Amino acid sequence: MLEYRIGTLASHSALGILAGARAEGFKTILFSPTQRRKRVYDNFNAADETIVLENGYHDLLHVCDDQTILIPHGSFVSYLPLDEFLRAPLKIFGTRELLRWESDRDLKSELMKDAGLRVPAETTEPDRVKFPCIVKYHGARGGKGFFVSKNKQDLNSKLTGEPAVIQHYISGVKVYVTYFRSIMRDRLEIFGTDIRYESSVDAKLHFDDNPSFTIVGNLPMILRESLLEEYLAMGEQFVEAVQRKVGVPMVGPFCLETIIDENLKIHTFEFSGRIVAGTNLYIPHSPYSYLYFGKEMWMGKRIALEVREASENAQIDQICV
Amino acid sequence: MLEYRIGTLASHSALGILAGARAEGFKTILFSPTQRRKRVYDNFNAADETIVLENGYHDLLHVCDDQTILIPHGSFVSYLPLDEFLRAPLKIFGTRELLRWESDRDLKSELMKDAGLRVPAETTEPDRVKFPCIVKYHGARGGKGFFVSKNKQDLNSKLTGEPAVIQHYISGVKVYVTYFRSIMRDRLEIFGTDIRYESSVDAKLHFDDNPSFTIVGNLPMILRESLLEEYLAMGEQFVEAVQRKVGVPMVGPFCLETIIDENLKIHTFEFSGRIVAGTNLYIPHSPYSYLYFGKEMWMGKRIALEVREASENAQIDQICV
Amino acid sequence: MLEYRIGTLASHSALGILAGARAEGFKTILFSPTQRRKRVYDNFNAADETIVLENGYHDLLHVCDDQTILIPHGSFVSYLPLDEFLRAPLKIFGTRELLRWESDRDLKSELMKDAGLRVPAETTEPDRVKFPCIVKYHGARGGKGFFVSKNKQDLNSKLTGEPAVIQHYISGVKVYVTYFRSIMRDRLEIFGTDIRYESSVDAKLHFDDNPSFTIVGNLPMILRESLLEEYLAMGEQFVEAVQRKVGVPMVGPFCLETIIDENLKIHTFEFSGRIVAGTNLYIPHSPYSYLYFGKEMWMGKRIALEVREASENAQIDQICV
Repeated sequence: MLEYRIGTLASHSALGILAGARAEGFKTILFSPTQRRKRVYDNFNAADETIVLENGYHDLLHVCDDQTILIPHGSFVSYLPLDEFLRAPLKIFGTRELLRWESDRDLKSELMKDAGLRVPAETTEPDRVKFPCIVKYHGARGGKGFFVSKNKQDLNSKLTGEPAVIQHYISGVKVYVTYFRSIMRDRLEIFGTDIRYESSVDAKLHFDDNPSFTIVGNLPMILRESLLEEYLAMGEQFVEAVQRKVGVPMVGPFCLETIIDENLKIHTFEFSGRIVAGTNLYIPHSPYSYLYFGKEMWMGKRIALEVREASENAQIDQICV
Repeated sequence: MLEYRIGTLASHSALGILAGARAEGFKTILFSPTQRRKRVYDNFNAADETIVLENGYHDLLHVCDDQTILIPHGSFVSYLPLDEFLRAPLKIFGTRELLRWESDRDLKSELMKDAGLRVPAETTEPDRVKFPCIVKYHGARGGKGFFVSKNKQDLNSKLTGEPAVIQHYISGVKVYVTYFRSIMRDRLEIFGTDIRYESSVDAKLHFDDNPSFTIVGNLPMILRESLLEEYLAMGEQFVEAVQRKVGVPMVGPFCLETIIDENLKIHTFEFSGRIVAGTNLYIPHSPYSYLYFGKEMWMGKRIALEVREASENAQIDQICV
Repeated sequence: MLEYRIGTLASHSALGILAGARAEGFKTILFSPTQRRKRVYDNFNAADETIVLENGYHDLLHVCDDQTILIPHGSFVSYLPLDEFLRAPLKIFGTRELLRWESDRDLKSELMKDAGLRVPAETTEPDRVKFPCIVKYHGARGGKGFFVSKNKQDLNSKLTGEPAVIQHYISGVKVYVTYFRSIMRDRLEIFGTDIRYESSVDAKLHFDDNPSFTIVGNLPMILRESLLEEYLAMGEQFVEAVQRKVGVPMVGPFCLETIIDENLKIHTFEFSGRIVAGTNLYIPHSPYSYLYFGKEMWMGKRIALEVREASENAQIDQICV
């Protein structure tokens, strides 16, 4: 009988997290923002118990007990008051403080550079922009409101004055690589690779010159095998940088968001310090996770496996850091 | 020993249908339009028995016995005389009459609107077109002959005078969502999501301004999890509309063919009232089907499971409506 | 206890090859060009033994013993001295001599034409080019350096004088179809279909008019089922042409690289006479391989299964031709 149960918010990658928890023998609890949202998870019979957060996401901080290990995902970062969440007396799987570094544009750049990753030039000053560029407003969710610009005149006509970071737009193809850092098995796993499917930039036909980047889903892809060498090194460097800068070990899933140019140079333009939605593609396995485990293993199950092994060794404090 | 066998036409999604039937313990029969086509299915050892329809598809109506449950797919809609097929004394899985609504442009629009879906403006009169538009000739198969137009002058130069429906072309990305309505388990399952791969609009480089929409295959994708809430509601509304308008229950697979715009608004521009070819991607499972069943479950197998459960309960009439 | 072990070079599709060999009960050996590369395969615990080729790929010819069956892949073709490799007293799985036909542009065209495939017009003389065209320099690796051109003036301004073949660029979508010719079971299997993911031609936005074709990975897709009829015939014709022109049986995996135009005509512009990287997508199975085997079966495992069956029948000479 496992001591803890596993819980998460009803969004983003919760279906895989809950199914993975069950597959590893855990009881599950879901925190849903609305009754309507709860219906989706009921349809999949996803959780043993569901609590509807009648007063909004914030309620999570008050209704979650200390026998629940929370698995944070993108909606935690987008919808919870971050400081309060990080200070709350909750058991949160993974490297809790890394969520702050992910959310703060300056800390984010600092960490990627410290890891020795090739990062596109980035500025907040329109006069110092390298073109083409992509403009990312703070607080933009799911890519909505991002836009690209080819030259200064165009950029000036589009900027609204809201705080934004302006990144050099590297010509190439995007690849999102998800890793899992296991403390229990002391290794770094390359878990899967995907591409985002975005409206309207992925439309088959374009009738306007300002495509948008609203994420509607994810597409599977697999890397040229010779590129794994550099991606493995990048993941290891990131793990080391987290220890160095954040001061605690990297635990669990993270994602490096990259562009590969035509010379096969890899540029990292973002990271996520927790499970990403691209892992939803790989239920019940990715090619890579199958190679490691030889059976069904998706990210939600991988997380639960780590929790179970920590629990059996009375080392929960090692994976909720 | 199961009372019925399962049969279908040698095209579209027959490999998955037959393999699924076998996996659920059924004997299978294949109706092939030619000897050459039969060879594909023999290569996969797909059927227990194959009948070549020497006089064309139409022969199916005469050679299929009443111990066979036919699983209709896109080729039934494209190649059989619809009225005759629907009146024939055959056991046809699913909501037989819905194939008529799918095939008739006016009935199709009526049903989608009755379901409360957001439908693009549509007209047959060139003067009332909302641009950009897509022109769909009646009887066009697999997207061949469809074209887009940005303005009135361009449209008039391209129209041939054949009967066509002209739809407002919504800017965004397409997502095809397949559902399974189970009578035996009284639930609606979200079974998988895909994108069509079309020549030439999906070509990497374009050398002409009039790309075509001939379907050559399907690409897998997975939805942003928060969008499932609306897609589940849309599926439920569709099921209710079928009961209301067609007058019988929705049974088995159907597909809503949608465009998601940059504001995450979902527009439904077509439906299919039977298995779609996008399900071929998800043999032996989709992420969603795995979440429901925790094992191999593709659409062909799901259909056979429904038939088996109905057969065991002597309720075949409930699933061939 | 199996008599042979299975070995390959540390690149391209080695992870799947080694995992497949293990799944069929073989011991495995990996030949790695560097220590750094070895780390990737160690990370996946991929091989029982690894030899680092301190003096470069060429060393493989000297360190590989005769109890090892080598599985050739794309890196063998790119990095080994071909003549020496083909003459070496090594046990090489598949149709060894076909690697020469794959590497020589003239032999390659000859074989495809002999197989009766529809091949794009091809020339080395800029005056006889059919536009639009794609220029492929000899020895280009992974598509790097390929470019397209719309007209003569543009072409002349881009040609560098290096030896190149100039192919008519067919407007349509690409589909890479992988087959497995089994000698032991005397059949041809359609194993999977994929699309290449290329930088920068697959970039979401283009800021320059000369996109490049550097392969960074592969994307899954599935064919419209009615197209399998022609693809099966094409594969069979290719197998016959190999026997006729190369003078030995086609053994194991090969790939036809095709473009489907808007009239569903299939054009074949390249072939590979061995495992391709697109098979990496389909670990542990593709929809097609699952239909044949009803369980986990990826290309690396399929190869090992063929080797095992040959070994058990003392017919290794039948599959290393």
